[in-house]
Amino acid sequence: MQDTHISLAHGNGGRFMRELIDEIFARHLANPGLDVQADAVPLAVNGSELLFTTDGFTVQPLEFPGGNIGTLAVHGTCNDLAVAGSTPRYLSLNAFIEEGLEIATLDRIIRSLAEAARDSGVQVVAGDTKVLRRGEGGGLYLATTGIGIRHPHHIGINRICSGDVLLVSGPVGDHGIAVMLAREAFGLHGELQSDAASVLPLTRTALDCAGLHFMRDPTRGGLATVCHELQRATGFGITLEQTQIPVRDAVQSVCDMLGYDPLYLACEGRVVAVVSADDADPLLQSWRALPQGEAAAIIGRLSQLHTHVLLKTALGGERILEELEDDPLPRIC
Amino acid sequence: MQDTHISLAHGNGGRFMRELIDEIFARHLANPGLDVQADAVPLAVNGSELLFTTDGFTVQPLEFPGGNIGTLAVHGTCNDLAVAGSTPRYLSLNAFIEEGLEIATLDRIIRSLAEAARDSGVQVVAGDTKVLRRGEGGGLYLATTGIGIRHPHHIGINRICSGDVLLVSGPVGDHGIAVMLAREAFGLHGELQSDAASVLPLTRTALDCAGLHFMRDPTRGGLATVCHELQRATGFGITLEQTQIPVRDAVQSVCDMLGYDPLYLACEGRVVAVVSADDADPLLQSWRALPQGEAAAIIGRLSQLHTHVLLKTALGGERILEELEDDPLPRIC
Repeated sequence: MQDTHISLAHGNGGRFMRELIDEIFARHLANPGLDVQADAVPLAVNGSELLFTTDGFTVQPLEFPGGNIGTLAVHGTCNDLAVAGSTPRYLSLNAFIEEGLEIATLDRIIRSLAEAARDSGVQVVAGDTKVLRRGEGGGLYLATTGIGIRHPHHIGINRICSGDVLLVSGPVGDHGIAVMLAREAFGLHGELQSDAASVLPLTRTALDCAGLHFMRDPTRGGLATVCHELQRATGFGITLEQTQIPVRDAVQSVCDMLGYDPLYLACEGRVVAVVSADDADPLLQSWRALPQGEAAAIIGRLSQLHTHVLLKTALGGERILEELEDDPLPRIC
Repeated sequence: MQDTHISLAHGNGGRFMRELIDEIFARHLANPGLDVQADAVPLAVNGSELLFTTDGFTVQPLEFPGGNIGTLAVHGTCNDLAVAGSTPRYLSLNAFIEEGLEIATLDRIIRSLAEAARDSGVQVVAGDTKVLRRGEGGGLYLATTGIGIRHPHHIGINRICSGDVLLVSGPVGDHGIAVMLAREAFGLHGELQSDAASVLPLTRTALDCAGLHFMRDPTRGGLATVCHELQRATGFGITLEQTQIPVRDAVQSVCDMLGYDPLYLACEGRVVAVVSADDADPLLQSWRALPQGEAAAIIGRLSQLHTHVLLKTALGGERILEELEDDPLPRIC
């Protein structure tokens, strides 16, 4: 790492963030239980099968179409447990509250956080609050840590095989664009809502599929970043079919206007599944039968024949999908 | 709660913070597993005896004599598990890093955090980092969530009896004053170090004592706040003997100069134990045999004959120790 000071690029889910985590956090904290690539890690306690995960939330604005920082904190952490193959059960909640925040705003956010927790079947059983001086807190930051009970069908990045197929459960980029539009700085307004929601119905269904090898939710850094993580961890190349990747027209329009690529934008209610070729169609049908999975699609394939993340374009060409470096939309989760 | 906006007093460990937590967090999040008074809560998973706790850290400056925000985060969370009667095992770590923080500073902090974790026998197994815009982060905020294995000797606030005795394991107020002096704004410098350290040797010894009913670490709000929490939870009055409460001369001098009361200042390596009268002396002797407990003392007693927190002064008088309202030293943890 060449830098001497932290920059916003260290927080965007891409290469700079990975280097920061590898060279400072992972290096000092190295222990057998720590896996910086995993959404959630198993805990070896009393033979029980617990998964453990944590997330911080700094989204701006605090409230946006389709959610707020509170619902995002619950869904973000529960979804990490869900895609790791478990049923979320317990959460802890840390709130860093800035002096001057309207108490009515805090009340709305915590009320909807509580509703999201009930809907997801988790209990918030531990919490802490700290108050930050005016100007030092962006209104509200949250950190949530979750515990889930592992499903008997164990999945993991090490189960992925050459020839496996990639599915996504719905359109990508909604959350990133919805939050960006809510900032109003762009003078754009639309009907677009964040996709922030529980993915539990999708992951439960997927875990019934014997050929399911791995799941991940494409949050910071989007679908492209998930593909790079898969590529690095497995060594297999990935080929995505651009025409098969679901993107809403409204999201694509804003992206075209502002020069974003929806493949790098955050989702907060989608699942990417890696599944054996034989089970890809059955899983697709199961997902499409769910309200959360109506627009699910088979979007690509892993192969040992190359080591890139490639995008087959609508025109039939192929281009390399680069790893995220610059942050297109900071502070979206 | 009368206020419409958050103020620093909502974060000081006193009455305003309690009202904020009761009226917003506890009200919306109410569930059988949530106990906002507990240092750590038991998790009902697979019959295993796990305790769960969480804390946020916003100390300024990030580094101070005797520790830094990283060691504080490990000790703070592990100590909450320890005083709740468990052996800490796993931690999650959230880092909110401000744009512009020197990477060398972050490296020092995370390195000493990792050392503190090793010394305390815990593994950091899950983590997340977020980068905050310059001016919106105070350099670094941390949130840690911990899991501990419960000791067979179950303690709890409901085990406290009238006639029980209060012990403290060492001098109070060191952490609060050490951090304040490190801010330099006061133009004072001294040899005083924070007491930030693991209390595990103290709590392990205490759990061997059959008459131990309850433990707590006097952090935000100090010893006086622990007494008010005990009074409210049990309904018993508490009488403290001022001459018996250990306070370092250096701490008392700064307090006299600046008008602070050491009983309201944070410790980060002390334990308050509530024990049956018969077991008070044996526990005192066991603690004094430990390097962490050399200055341990019997400092007071609970009684059903009144409902106040009283301080018997050096001159033989008695005064009511009020609940903390104004924040004498914000941002010390």
